[in-house]
Amino acid sequence: MPELRKDPITGRWVIFSTDRASRPQSMGEGKAPESQRAEDCPFCEGNEGKTPPEIYSVREWGSATNGPKWRVRVVPNKYPALRIEGELEKRGEGIYDRMNGVGAHEVFIEGPRHLTTPAGLSPSLLLDAAAAHRERMRDLRRDRRFAYGLLFKNVGRTAGASLPHNHSQLIATPVVPVLVQHEMDGAKRFFDYRGRCLFCDMVQQEISDKERLVEAGDRFVAFVPYAARFPYETWILPRRHASHFEELEDEDLAAYAAILGSCLRRLEKALGNPPYNTMLHSGPWVGGALESYHWHLEVIPRVTTAAGFEWGSGFYINPVLPELAAVELRKVVP
Amino acid sequence: MPELRKDPITGRWVIFSTDRASRPQSMGEGKAPESQRAEDCPFCEGNEGKTPPEIYSVREWGSATNGPKWRVRVVPNKYPALRIEGELEKRGEGIYDRMNGVGAHEVFIEGPRHLTTPAGLSPSLLLDAAAAHRERMRDLRRDRRFAYGLLFKNVGRTAGASLPHNHSQLIATPVVPVLVQHEMDGAKRFFDYRGRCLFCDMVQQEISDKERLVEAGDRFVAFVPYAARFPYETWILPRRHASHFEELEDEDLAAYAAILGSCLRRLEKALGNPPYNTMLHSGPWVGGALESYHWHLEVIPRVTTAAGFEWGSGFYINPVLPELAAVELRKVVP
Repeated sequence: MPELRKDPITGRWVIFSTDRASRPQSMGEGKAPESQRAEDCPFCEGNEGKTPPEIYSVREWGSATNGPKWRVRVVPNKYPALRIEGELEKRGEGIYDRMNGVGAHEVFIEGPRHLTTPAGLSPSLLLDAAAAHRERMRDLRRDRRFAYGLLFKNVGRTAGASLPHNHSQLIATPVVPVLVQHEMDGAKRFFDYRGRCLFCDMVQQEISDKERLVEAGDRFVAFVPYAARFPYETWILPRRHASHFEELEDEDLAAYAAILGSCLRRLEKALGNPPYNTMLHSGPWVGGALESYHWHLEVIPRVTTAAGFEWGSGFYINPVLPELAAVELRKVVP
Repeated sequence: MPELRKDPITGRWVIFSTDRASRPQSMGEGKAPESQRAEDCPFCEGNEGKTPPEIYSVREWGSATNGPKWRVRVVPNKYPALRIEGELEKRGEGIYDRMNGVGAHEVFIEGPRHLTTPAGLSPSLLLDAAAAHRERMRDLRRDRRFAYGLLFKNVGRTAGASLPHNHSQLIATPVVPVLVQHEMDGAKRFFDYRGRCLFCDMVQQEISDKERLVEAGDRFVAFVPYAARFPYETWILPRRHASHFEELEDEDLAAYAAILGSCLRRLEKALGNPPYNTMLHSGPWVGGALESYHWHLEVIPRVTTAAGFEWGSGFYINPVLPELAAVELRKVVP
């Protein structure tokens, strides 16, 4: 059973998951995951037996669960960071705090074919994937043990991908992650002082400033944030205030999938298929809708190296001004 | 001039330093910095002309500044993240905040020979380096524009080193880094509640628990923290409460250099010269001594990859229990 321990100074949690050390680095030392052959890929159509049984899928009418003819499959992670069974058993050890590593760790296999860049997915597949994300978040939030669900994607080995076939992951945790809590605290302070959502104000300013804008539609906007940590970092936000991704209605979901595909194509073309991560920041599963918090997707290209200064300070050094990155991203025909 | 921008949500600062993009990656694509030849190394004795003029040095009596016969040289970083000249000129841009990228960025060249692993430095050289760190921090804190000085070391390319020759860096910033602020806030809450320094309590518990202890001397203690983010992460703390590193007296400085050398040798032997960072967390330069904060050195081996989950949540996944890492580190004869 993994164990969760809390740093008493900063309140951040660490998952001690010793099983994961034995996780096969499928690509071998120094071999990029991209080089994996499709016939060995556990995520390709026809290889369904190589994954744990599916939890959810978008598949052809009448096709058999765990057989072929699917578009999106959701399966438990074979080497989960947290375990779905058991109780938290919170307790202290002197001044320290720990609990059992209870949580969910699901993998969304996005597309039956061996595509390794998300930008290569068709618009309808991106929409199917987004619908699956929404569905699984709706389901997992009903489990009272979980306080939060973080949906993320690792693209490329440098960004932490251990398998190249397009996939996302959802980890449900028994505590709200410290970074999301910091965002919520900051946004709450702004709301208490100004009486408005900070993110809504950002959206307004970005649309009127224009210079950091990547794309603006009726329902969503994408821009390079003013204080982007990474070169070409891009955020996607709904224009209308909403704290929880999983509350998205169908029309908005389609608009979201469209702008997401477009932004990823811009990024992959502008930087030549860089390694990157996407992280969805949405409201916690404890408590209801929030006036002061606004869900958003963060896309961070991993083309710089965080060194001692960044790890020690929380400062970031970004060599590319957001306004210049936005020009380059706007230029691309997605 | 670099620019500092603040993320309005979390309060973290980003340094936009466009000059640094042109910094030569001396080792070339895919080539480890270790492979650089000593005769090309700007940090080796005899090549003093290849660095900016020295700010401070520990050198043979009577030897000429910027000439050979030194043990430690401190020079401005040739590609500084922040610039020493100018005023901050803080101002808003709509809801955002920015200021000029004013600060200091100094490099400590540790040893005249082309040694690439800190554990290879002699005890007396480690002490000379620590004395130089203390001296430069004492000097820079007198500059009223600076709120903090972060001393750090990058070892190995994966850890962000762009030159292999042993060196540390000190970046003085006009704001207290968000990670140090979070540590101070957490420690202050503990102090307000318990009336004691949290770090002093940790030291006591680690000494009595023993299982995470790496080394304990009369003046310093080294252990793997209970909630270590990284495998084999090691912290070094003074046993007696002290908030500011640069206030260290000579006898303590010698004990610090000794335990530091010993811990680095343990780490390098146990993991076979891993890439790693060291970061010194000490009290800010604004205000005086703090009852609730305790300076310490954090050593983080960079043998795991932070992926979307870690970047998006602030959770860490560590495959090695601190108690097991400590056993391995204790085994090594340093």
